[in-house]
Amino acid sequence: MQNSKYEIITDYIKKKIAAGSLKDGDKVPSENALTNKFSVSRDTVRRGFKALELEGILVSKRGSGTFVRLRKGFSSDRIAVVTTYVENYIFPKIIKGIEATLSQRGYSMQLSFTDNQFEKEREVLTDILAKEDVAGIIMEPVKSALPNPNLEIYESLREKGVPVLFINTYYRETDIPHVSLNDEAMAYMATKYLISKGHKRISAILKMDDGQGHLRFAGYRRALYEQGVKNPSDYVMWYDTGDEGRYDMFDSHSMKRLNGCTAVFCYNDKVARELINYLQSKGQKVPEDVSVISMDDSDLAKLGDVKITSCPHPMAELGRVAAENLIKLIDNPKFDATKEFVTEVKERGSVKNI
Amino acid sequence: MQNSKYEIITDYIKKKIAAGSLKDGDKVPSENALTNKFSVSRDTVRRGFKALELEGILVSKRGSGTFVRLRKGFSSDRIAVVTTYVENYIFPKIIKGIEATLSQRGYSMQLSFTDNQFEKEREVLTDILAKEDVAGIIMEPVKSALPNPNLEIYESLREKGVPVLFINTYYRETDIPHVSLNDEAMAYMATKYLISKGHKRISAILKMDDGQGHLRFAGYRRALYEQGVKNPSDYVMWYDTGDEGRYDMFDSHSMKRLNGCTAVFCYNDKVARELINYLQSKGQKVPEDVSVISMDDSDLAKLGDVKITSCPHPMAELGRVAAENLIKLIDNPKFDATKEFVTEVKERGSVKNI
Repeated sequence: MQNSKYEIITDYIKKKIAAGSLKDGDKVPSENALTNKFSVSRDTVRRGFKALELEGILVSKRGSGTFVRLRKGFSSDRIAVVTTYVENYIFPKIIKGIEATLSQRGYSMQLSFTDNQFEKEREVLTDILAKEDVAGIIMEPVKSALPNPNLEIYESLREKGVPVLFINTYYRETDIPHVSLNDEAMAYMATKYLISKGHKRISAILKMDDGQGHLRFAGYRRALYEQGVKNPSDYVMWYDTGDEGRYDMFDSHSMKRLNGCTAVFCYNDKVARELINYLQSKGQKVPEDVSVISMDDSDLAKLGDVKITSCPHPMAELGRVAAENLIKLIDNPKFDATKEFVTEVKERGSVKNI
Repeated sequence: MQNSKYEIITDYIKKKIAAGSLKDGDKVPSENALTNKFSVSRDTVRRGFKALELEGILVSKRGSGTFVRLRKGFSSDRIAVVTTYVENYIFPKIIKGIEATLSQRGYSMQLSFTDNQFEKEREVLTDILAKEDVAGIIMEPVKSALPNPNLEIYESLREKGVPVLFINTYYRETDIPHVSLNDEAMAYMATKYLISKGHKRISAILKMDDGQGHLRFAGYRRALYEQGVKNPSDYVMWYDTGDEGRYDMFDSHSMKRLNGCTAVFCYNDKVARELINYLQSKGQKVPEDVSVISMDDSDLAKLGDVKITSCPHPMAELGRVAAENLIKLIDNPKFDATKEFVTEVKERGSVKNI
């Protein structure tokens, strides 16, 4: 017995879902098609769709149609954004890009940071799991080159249907999508740039506990292999999160890896700026004595007497794409949200033609 | 038209393979079963099997039956063994264990080493691929915590049907089996041992470019998390292949990660021995001032005035199992050849009860 005319529509859709011919994320037949099929009014079809939306089975998207949404997840208009740092370097611009897009789409942003510490990552995610009040998470991985101790929390989030999107890099242990630079390609490009300026003996200063450090190592190495350099690893000075901002990092035995080089590929503008300060304190000039190229093209590259030639991080643009892709992922768990950027070297004043 | 009686048998087996009901690695029906089925003599069945062995379609294994072997591979009685180092530390014993088992089984051993350099790994494997004269490869991965640049060579070996077995660790990018320590569990055990002796502030010296370093970090961290230690990463001093044997490693800013600790978990006996020498040169005594535990329990742990408490590497036993498992893999590509060892702490004289 049918109580209302529109139940022709709701029954039809539910049976198709039960039979598996309509699956999570699938588009349902159009209003026109159903109007014709059942000889009912357009209004009846709409009422049927509305009832299924209220039941949380369908979701309609302006301009693109109505879709099955079976995933659980927490119904909320809040998005959690978790970055390693918040207040300096490239982070304010990334966060601004995310925030602008989220607010445009009617979402609010809940911001936390991890200081690139596994323990804070655990706290933040445990809290999100307990409160069940965000629709999705934009997350910057913590020390992604080391084994992650919080994988079971990501698994719980997946089980609860809370979409996660990584920014800047990703954990190799998961298949969670990411929006980042193509770090291998960018490092290859930066190293090729130094080669094109006549440099042969090229060192690198890279971060060992973030995945970007490993991928940038792979790109740097590929460029040097092509030049016939036998052991690129011998010219790499590695540092980790705990060394950041520690000036004594350069008064170290590992600094010997830079001996004899004419150019250095730096992990980011921060370490490039510190290297330049250190070299200057030792009476060496950049780029006259040593050339430096780095990554991110942040404000740090543009300040000081030596402006740094750097490969731009898309900052606000990356934030915008991350926010858009997470929203698409909330609407459709099948959406392929991964995107990697490649940008062009921004020439400033730190590389000499030799 | 059949030329010989035994072709009843060869035709029957070949048809079953063509139809897919006998697959690579499957056991074929027994001599008895075929004798009854076709009313032929046992001798006829055997001649049929022999003919198929000569064609390279079947392989018989003493005591276990006759199996389909369709895989390609290079027919040879030589096994390539490729380690990072050959002539010192734990390597002679591992290699002896491999060699003893291989020669017992009628295989000869072709030995090369990589010096833990990607470039030598590439040379050695390229050579093996070109010569096509080994039946399988026992390989110690190179700098397995960094992205590997030679993965396409492993892919070529797989396509050509040459089985590879890793020892000591593995590449996360491949699913090649490995025979190794369970590094996470062993490091956890070593750290728990220090905790059981009353130590609270425990540092670690770990290798950043080998996979074992990352897994041992995970085990060390797990033990400290259980004690409520918040940021174990802050107490870890990382080094890499290029630092090995460099005494100035300890005259480094990163040595500050050890400040205030009462015990140190060391990556292996080599770095533990160097640490003890360094501490003694600074007037500090082991274990009176600082306790030290390490991995491998090699001869280095047993020499000198301070004997080192260490977690034994199964050396010859690991070599033996690796050789046996590779031979099984040559006979049956489906064999699950992975094996991880766990051993018990060997108490010597470098840990103090506090």
